[in-house]
Amino acid sequence: MGEFELLARVRERLPPTGPRVRLGSGDDAAVTLPDGATATSVDVLVEGVHFRRGLASLAQIGHKALATALSDLAAMGAEAGEAYVVLGVPPDVDEDECIEVLDGMAGLAVATGASLAGGDVSRAAELFLAITVVGHAASPESFVSRAGAKPGDALVLTGEIGGAAAGLHLLNNPNLAADFVLKGAMDGLRAKSAMEALVTRQLEPTPRLAAGRILASRGATAMIDLSDGLGGDAHHLAERSGIGLRIDGGDLPLADGLAAVAAAAGRDPLELAVGGGEDYELLATLPPDELAGATRLLAETEALKLTRVGEVVDGKGVEIRLPDGRLLESAGFDQLA
Amino acid sequence: MGEFELLARVRERLPPTGPRVRLGSGDDAAVTLPDGATATSVDVLVEGVHFRRGLASLAQIGHKALATALSDLAAMGAEAGEAYVVLGVPPDVDEDECIEVLDGMAGLAVATGASLAGGDVSRAAELFLAITVVGHAASPESFVSRAGAKPGDALVLTGEIGGAAAGLHLLNNPNLAADFVLKGAMDGLRAKSAMEALVTRQLEPTPRLAAGRILASRGATAMIDLSDGLGGDAHHLAERSGIGLRIDGGDLPLADGLAAVAAAAGRDPLELAVGGGEDYELLATLPPDELAGATRLLAETEALKLTRVGEVVDGKGVEIRLPDGRLLESAGFDQLA
Repeated sequence: MGEFELLARVRERLPPTGPRVRLGSGDDAAVTLPDGATATSVDVLVEGVHFRRGLASLAQIGHKALATALSDLAAMGAEAGEAYVVLGVPPDVDEDECIEVLDGMAGLAVATGASLAGGDVSRAAELFLAITVVGHAASPESFVSRAGAKPGDALVLTGEIGGAAAGLHLLNNPNLAADFVLKGAMDGLRAKSAMEALVTRQLEPTPRLAAGRILASRGATAMIDLSDGLGGDAHHLAERSGIGLRIDGGDLPLADGLAAVAAAAGRDPLELAVGGGEDYELLATLPPDELAGATRLLAETEALKLTRVGEVVDGKGVEIRLPDGRLLESAGFDQLA
Repeated sequence: MGEFELLARVRERLPPTGPRVRLGSGDDAAVTLPDGATATSVDVLVEGVHFRRGLASLAQIGHKALATALSDLAAMGAEAGEAYVVLGVPPDVDEDECIEVLDGMAGLAVATGASLAGGDVSRAAELFLAITVVGHAASPESFVSRAGAKPGDALVLTGEIGGAAAGLHLLNNPNLAADFVLKGAMDGLRAKSAMEALVTRQLEPTPRLAAGRILASRGATAMIDLSDGLGGDAHHLAERSGIGLRIDGGDLPLADGLAAVAAAAGRDPLELAVGGGEDYELLATLPPDELAGATRLLAETEALKLTRVGEVVDGKGVEIRLPDGRLLESAGFDQLA
């Protein structure tokens, strides 16, 4: 496979770029004209660390790499702009398979309005994808960092959590399906559809870009996406904001089917939800008087649930009160995992 | 090594960021406020493909990864802005060694005015570095693409070529030193200093950022940096501009010591210079009446030579006339290598 030939094939298949891109792939650099401030994030997915080719299709791997990068832009309240893709290609991945990876990425790019504006490719020992994404907003102050949470703010969470961890568990344990139906006491059809949803949740996450912009527009004071898991990511937000977070474990919105998978696996569903990661939902702090408006907007425009899961308090760290009364004092992801 | 611990250590050591960076490493994304148009390029260096740890220090590997990325911005006539770094770390590279890589990068960032504004790190099977760089200019039209060369333009080259290829040859053949002195008919001291310069040229290339901006300001119609080698890169420029290039091999500015290394290696120096790559000099097309002014400016402000090496003609492809009268019809790098 020649690098130039592959790049030429990739360029032919790229979806049209957005209006900010004045010169796309194929020159020394892409040229864009941002119309305000930019938010830029980089993410890398490495075979054997972040994905396994046996469990995910190449298109799903491409989708997930771009999704995890765009999720960081969602957490800033940014509009998706440009994506730049580096592909490390091992000897057993051929040119057609590289195109499959790119096609998975291009599908999500079109769905989110992101432009694939450039990239590089190299031979490598293992498959890896390094993605840089650039998001846009009117001014630097329009973005929501992790640092602005204030005591008294409500702590809110989009969607449901635990689904990605449950999906990973199902992927890793193909024989779990029967147990899942039996111990979970779900009927067969409902169990199958819930299982598929959990697996999709793990393999093809959705970056909450529109939700992030809505939360930013409703005055979110701090925001982070859940990549490491609620326990760890809440800690990152608390640390950067210099505040404490109190979370009521009983209020956490758990993914449909999580309880059944957890039961079949002999795990605590809350532990999976809090420590599992990769849900890519948004955790934000909001002035309490914005809660009702933000909830309504998200439901109406995105059909997405917003749940108040706790509050910002003076102090440090994250406290998660479990329904059985136990208290998890979180110093980060490792302690909860 | 914990990812978060390493990132925290890296952040502590980062040089201060430039005025466009409003929020640096440590949040979901870096926030910048560009003051015009941006040029963005990504480059990946993979162990065993682009470098070997035995031949280059970790700091040199970091330097080179950033240098090759910044060289693409130089070829656009851009001012260096922000750099985002992805590091793939194999089991035999420890945290201190990661810091060495970053220190090499930080040294060049400070020297070029680039800000290290974000990054990601992952375990990997082999060491790799994926770098995204963002450069700035007043407007999209201020950048110089590969596409604007016009028949009648002069073809010019900064600095000297062949040095990086000769340096690689010396690195790959440690016993060449004696031959180098003997066959090259250079005295010992001069040979040693020339050898060191060639090896440095290979391991620590200099992105020609100031030269790129000067050539852009003097009306360069097209520009590219020499990463693949003059033969291949001239072809890229000719193809994108839809013109032909005639290069006089006898006019090519060859690195000091190249002839001696080529003689010792039994290679043709011109072949090394044209096919070797990695010199990261700039190849540009200029209206002929700008040639004298650009040459003077580069000499005065950058102490850098500008050589007219050929011309833009109607037609297609690249023709390199060798001093012995032979004509190389270049269809790209592969044919010349």
